[in-house]
Amino acid sequence: MHEENETARIEAFSDGVFAIAITLLVLEIRVPSHESVAASGLARTLVALWPSYLAFFTSFVMILVVWVQHHWIFTQVRKADHLVLYWNGLLLFVVTFIPFPTGLLAEYLLHPEARVAASLYTGNFLLVTLVFHGLWRHVSKGGRLLAANAISSNRDEAARITKHYQLAPLLYLAVFVLSFISEIASIVSCLLLAFHFALRGWPTSAT
Amino acid sequence: MHEENETARIEAFSDGVFAIAITLLVLEIRVPSHESVAASGLARTLVALWPSYLAFFTSFVMILVVWVQHHWIFTQVRKADHLVLYWNGLLLFVVTFIPFPTGLLAEYLLHPEARVAASLYTGNFLLVTLVFHGLWRHVSKGGRLLAANAISSNRDEAARITKHYQLAPLLYLAVFVLSFISEIASIVSCLLLAFHFALRGWPTSAT
Amino acid sequence: MHEENETARIEAFSDGVFAIAITLLVLEIRVPSHESVAASGLARTLVALWPSYLAFFTSFVMILVVWVQHHWIFTQVRKADHLVLYWNGLLLFVVTFIPFPTGLLAEYLLHPEARVAASLYTGNFLLVTLVFHGLWRHVSKGGRLLAANAISSNRDEAARITKHYQLAPLLYLAVFVLSFISEIASIVSCLLLAFHFALRGWPTSAT
Amino acid sequence: MHEENETARIEAFSDGVFAIAITLLVLEIRVPSHESVAASGLARTLVALWPSYLAFFTSFVMILVVWVQHHWIFTQVRKADHLVLYWNGLLLFVVTFIPFPTGLLAEYLLHPEARVAASLYTGNFLLVTLVFHGLWRHVSKGGRLLAANAISSNRDEAARITKHYQLAPLLYLAVFVLSFISEIASIVSCLLLAFHFALRGWPTSAT
Repeated sequence: MHEENETARIEAFSDGVFAIAITLLVLEIRVPSHESVAASGLARTLVALWPSYLAFFTSFVMILVVWVQHHWIFTQVRKADHLVLYWNGLLLFVVTFIPFPTGLLAEYLLHPEARVAASLYTGNFLLVTLVFHGLWRHVSKGGRLLAANAISSNRDEAARITKHYQLAPLLYLAVFVLSFISEIASIVSCLLLAFHFALRGWPTSAT
Repeated sequence: MHEENETARIEAFSDGVFAIAITLLVLEIRVPSHESVAASGLARTLVALWPSYLAFFTSFVMILVVWVQHHWIFTQVRKADHLVLYWNGLLLFVVTFIPFPTGLLAEYLLHPEARVAASLYTGNFLLVTLVFHGLWRHVSKGGRLLAANAISSNRDEAARITKHYQLAPLLYLAVFVLSFISEIASIVSCLLLAFHFALRGWPTSAT
Repeated sequence: MHEENETARIEAFSDGVFAIAITLLVLEIRVPSHESVAASGLARTLVALWPSYLAFFTSFVMILVVWVQHHWIFTQVRKADHLVLYWNGLLLFVVTFIPFPTGLLAEYLLHPEARVAASLYTGNFLLVTLVFHGLWRHVSKGGRLLAANAISSNRDEAARITKHYQLAPLLYLAVFVLSFISEIASIVSCLLLAFHFALRGWPTSAT
Repeated sequence: MHEENETARIEAFSDGVFAIAITLLVLEIRVPSHESVAASGLARTLVALWPSYLAFFTSFVMILVVWVQHHWIFTQVRKADHLVLYWNGLLLFVVTFIPFPTGLLAEYLLHPEARVAASLYTGNFLLVTLVFHGLWRHVSKGGRLLAANAISSNRDEAARITKHYQLAPLLYLAVFVLSFISEIASIVSCLLLAFHFALRGWPTSAT
C-alpha cells in the first residue's frame, strides 16, 4: 500500500469528523420555550442566550483551528505507523467530545457553579493541545516518519511546529488555571488564543 | 505546498459543512406530541406545522445557493492567503448558525412576537451576503489572488461576480427591513431571491 | 470550467447529503424514558419500539437505493445545465426530508390515525421517484446532456433507465394508495420494492 | 464503468457514514438538567454521568476500528458485485444503529435491568463482526473479486484477514454471553478487544 495514500486517508477521515463536529455545535443552542418567552418576551429571551452564542463561537473557532493545525502537521508526515493511528484517534476523540462541554458551558455559565463548566471546557482544549503535542512529538522523533522535504529544505518548518506545540499546552494550561478564577476571562482567553493560532501552519508562501 | 491544493482543501471542507448544515435542518421539524394530536387530530396538527415546512424549505434553498456561489468565487481564486481563511471561516460560521434562526422562525412565526424571529432569520441571510461581499472584495482586490485565466480571458466573469456581490447585500437589506413590516412577506422574498440567485455562478457554458 | 468536474461536484455533494441523511435516521429512535421502563420493564419497552426499528430500517434501505440510483443516472450524464441543478436540488430536498416522516411513522404507527403517518411516509417516497423521473427525463431529452458513450454504445443502458423511471412512480403510487387501506402492508411493500430496486443501476459488468 | 472506481465509491460513502456516526455519538451525552444539579451539585452530577462517558468512549473506539478494518478488506478487493453491495449496506446498517444502544447503555447501565441494555450493546457489536465475516467470506470466495496482487503476492494478507474474521465473531460472542453475567465486565472486554483489533489491517509495512 502506498504510504502517501495512507496519510491522505487519515486526513480525509479526520477532515470529515472536524466538519461534522463544527456543524453539530449549533444543536446546543436551544430554541427558547414558549414559557420563558411568555415571561420576558422573545427579544429579551434571545439576548439572555448570550452564553450559548459565546460558547458556540468559541468552540467553532477552536475546531477551525484544529482543522488548520491538523493539516499543518500532516503536510510534514510521509508515512503513518500504528502509533500515529492511536494519536490521531485520540485527537478525534477529544475533538468530537467538544459539543458536550460547549452545551454544558452554554447552560451553566450564569450558574453559581459556572467554574465547574468552565474548567471542563478549557480543560478539554488543554487536552487537545496535549494530544497535538504528543502526535507531533511521535511523528517528528528521529525524522523517521517525516517527508523527505520536511527533513531537508523544510527543517525550519518542522522546528517551527515543534516550538509551537511546546508553547501551546503551556498557554492553555494558564487558561485552565484562569477558569478557576474567572470563567468569562478564561473563555475570552481561549478565543483570543484561537485567533492567534488560527494562522499558524497555514503556508507562509501565500501571505 | 501547492496553492491550488490549498483552495481545493478549503472548498472540500466548506462543501462538507454545507452538506451537513443542509441535512441537519430537518431536525428542527419536531414530530408532534401525542397531546397536541389528541386535541386536534394528526392531520390537522401536521398542517399546523406549515411554518416549520416554510422555514425548512427556505433555509434549504438558501444553503444550496451558498454552495453554488461559494464554488463560483473559488473557481476564480488561484491562491489563498490568511485573510481568505478568516473570511471563509466567517462564512462557515454564519452558515452553520442557520439551523438556529430556522428553528426559531418555525416555532414563533405565528406568535405575536414573530417580528423578532423573522428579523433574526432575514438578518442572518443579510450577514451571509455581506460576508460573501467581503470575501470576494478581498480575493479580487488587485487581482493578486485570482487565477491567471480569471485575470485575462475571464475578466468579465470577475466583473459579473463583483456586480453580483454589490447588489445582493442591498436586496437582502431590503428583505431585512421588510421583516419589520410583514414577516411572511420577508420570508417569501428571501425564497424568491434565493431562486433568482440559485443559478448565478453556475457555468454559463452549460446553459 | 470542465463539465465533467461539474457533474463530479454535484455527485460528491449529493453523496455527502445522502451519507448524512442515512446516519441521522437513528436519532429518531428515542431511548425510552425511565417512566415507561418502570411500567413494563426495559426488555418489553424495547420490543414495543418495533415501529421505530421498522421505520428506521425501511428509510435506511430507501436512502441507500437513492444513492445507488443517483449514481446510475450520473454515469450517463456528461454535462449539467441549470435545470439539472434545480432537479438535483429538488431530489436532495425530498431526501433530506425523509427523517421527519420516518420519526412520525415510528411515533404514530400504532396510533388510531396511523393512516396519516403512513400516507405521508409513502407519499414522500412517491415524490422521490417522481423527481428521479423528472431528472432523468430532462437529462436524457435529445441526448444533449448525455455522455458520448451513453449515446452510442450505452444507448441500451439509457433505455433501461428510461423504462425504470417510468415504472417506479407507478409502483410507489400503488404503495401510496395501499397506505390508506393497510399501513403495515404499505410499509412492507416499500421495503420490498426498495430491495428489488437496490441493484438497478449497479454496473452489470460486475455481476 | 471502471471497477476500481466502484470500490472507491463504496469506500468513500462508507467512510462518510463512519465519520458521521462517530461524531453523532456525543449527542447521547445529555447536558444535566438544572433540577439534578440543584440536588447534588454540578461536579457530582457530571461524575455520575460516567456510564455515558464509558459508552461514548467504547463506541467511539469500536467505530474507529470498523473504519480501519473496512479499509483493510477493501484494499484486497478488485471489483464489487451485487452481493458486495448488500453486505456493505448491511454493515453500514449495523454501524449507523450503534448510537441507539450506546444511548441506551448510558441511560440504563446503573439500572436494575442493565443486563438488557448491555446485551443489546454487545449484541450489536457481535452483529458487526458477523457482517464483516460474511462480507469477507463473499469477496474472498474463489478469489474472483480479489485484486490480482491479493491473489499472488498478498495471499498471506488474505489468509490473515480470513483468520481474523473467523476469530472475531467468537470473541464477541463470548463478550455477549459475558454481558448476562456482568454488564461492566462485558463493556470493558469490548473496549479491550477493540484496542487489540485497532491495528489489524493497518499496513505492516509502516510499522
